[in-house]
Amino acid sequence: MEKLYVIKIGGNIIEDAKVLDDFLCNFASLNCYKVLIHGGGKNATQFANDIGIEAQFVEGRRITDEKMLRIVQQIYTSLNQEIIIKLFNLGCKATGITGKDGKIINAVKRAPLNGIDYGFVGDIREVNGEFLSDIIIKDQSIPVLSPIVYDIQTKKVLNTNADTIAYNVAKSLISKFEVHLIYCFELKGVLENFEDKNSVISEITPAKYSELKEKGIISKGMIPKMDNSFDAIHSGVTSVRICHADDLVDIINKEELKGTKLHK
Amino acid sequence: MEKLYVIKIGGNIIEDAKVLDDFLCNFASLNCYKVLIHGGGKNATQFANDIGIEAQFVEGRRITDEKMLRIVQQIYTSLNQEIIIKLFNLGCKATGITGKDGKIINAVKRAPLNGIDYGFVGDIREVNGEFLSDIIIKDQSIPVLSPIVYDIQTKKVLNTNADTIAYNVAKSLISKFEVHLIYCFELKGVLENFEDKNSVISEITPAKYSELKEKGIISKGMIPKMDNSFDAIHSGVTSVRICHADDLVDIINKEELKGTKLHK
Repeated sequence: MEKLYVIKIGGNIIEDAKVLDDFLCNFASLNCYKVLIHGGGKNATQFANDIGIEAQFVEGRRITDEKMLRIVQQIYTSLNQEIIIKLFNLGCKATGITGKDGKIINAVKRAPLNGIDYGFVGDIREVNGEFLSDIIIKDQSIPVLSPIVYDIQTKKVLNTNADTIAYNVAKSLISKFEVHLIYCFELKGVLENFEDKNSVISEITPAKYSELKEKGIISKGMIPKMDNSFDAIHSGVTSVRICHADDLVDIINKEELKGTKLHK
Repeated sequence: MEKLYVIKIGGNIIEDAKVLDDFLCNFASLNCYKVLIHGGGKNATQFANDIGIEAQFVEGRRITDEKMLRIVQQIYTSLNQEIIIKLFNLGCKATGITGKDGKIINAVKRAPLNGIDYGFVGDIREVNGEFLSDIIIKDQSIPVLSPIVYDIQTKKVLNTNADTIAYNVAKSLISKFEVHLIYCFELKGVLENFEDKNSVISEITPAKYSELKEKGIISKGMIPKMDNSFDAIHSGVTSVRICHADDLVDIINKEELKGTKLHK
């Protein structure tokens, strides 16, 4: 089977036009099948603030009311369009997927959790891997996904997070490709010592993961990302890498051991 | 000199995805130098309403406060991106121009008029025709302009209207091309009798224009459009046409006498 890279980029790349340009230049140069998934929550929060609407959070999680959903949808769509245009200008054919018709990702509105209603937030029910693989192989195009999903039953768009999209998309494509999932973030990898930005843990197995959690080295926001990554691996995704965006080309083209590699 | 068509599309085309697709399909098929200018004010008003911000108007003119400017800029940019992507997918190279750096259109904030401050609204000072013509000839690309302009002195973006952009852009290119300006709108042309949508006046000279104004056949919103059009003609624009978007291909490719043609 051919290799496919599902690459997720976070806010640190999207918020700075120069950083995004550099990333897309590297991404465009990768001579392989690929999918790009972007976040953009901070841009939405910034836009809301600019127009005098205060974004609501409970324990770091956004409350998406109807107005915020409209803003999030608008800002994510615009970011998606910006990426598509930049990729076109770099000579890549790319297809923007902003979730609004439910053809790719079907989701269901999350029920209130511990008494907190997070609003129009979607939990992914199904990703149409067939449709995505047609874009990749038949159209020879790069799917670029924003974290907006759709509930086919209620015909409503819903907000979600890009990490969750990434691992669900990766899982949906394992029957067609040898899938590698890469989370690009602001650090060089998962760190042994958070104070030392070079103390990257190169490899994490499930056993090592339990150990790192016990020691408190992996905690808080990293736990769902790691849990989802191991779930993806157990479902048939070949590898998951957590790394800095600058190391992407070396990891894919030179197969260098940069970032943190998760495997069985 | 080679012919260049400066084509302006209004809200009726932009508000409906199917109508926009059809228009862009026709536009892409035109085998000539061209510039596209789009509006989108109603989309901005709709978005503002969706998020609970009321758009303010005085005598049909928008008051652009700081929040509305941020909304207008966001919505116009997104529309511009949507058009660029659709043109790419139709095989056209297109360059989005959303005014934010002042390279193309330099403007100055409008002073309060009859005691009414319209806010962050720009009056065009200068269009850089050299820059536009480089995009058209050197890059072999289609400039697509949104009605956002920039004040180089205060480094502020400003809102303006697409009709004004269109005739200023047309004028800026007369030393490089034989320029034809086309306003696409929801009617077949300027009507003799507003009740009869087929009563199109085929040609209007300045003398005929005076006559039509006296009779009250041309009034209100049409007056600035016509004044600007004749100003463009007197400045060296070869012709101005006001027509329905569906007639664009026939007018340009078959040189049919559809719509209303303004000339000396």
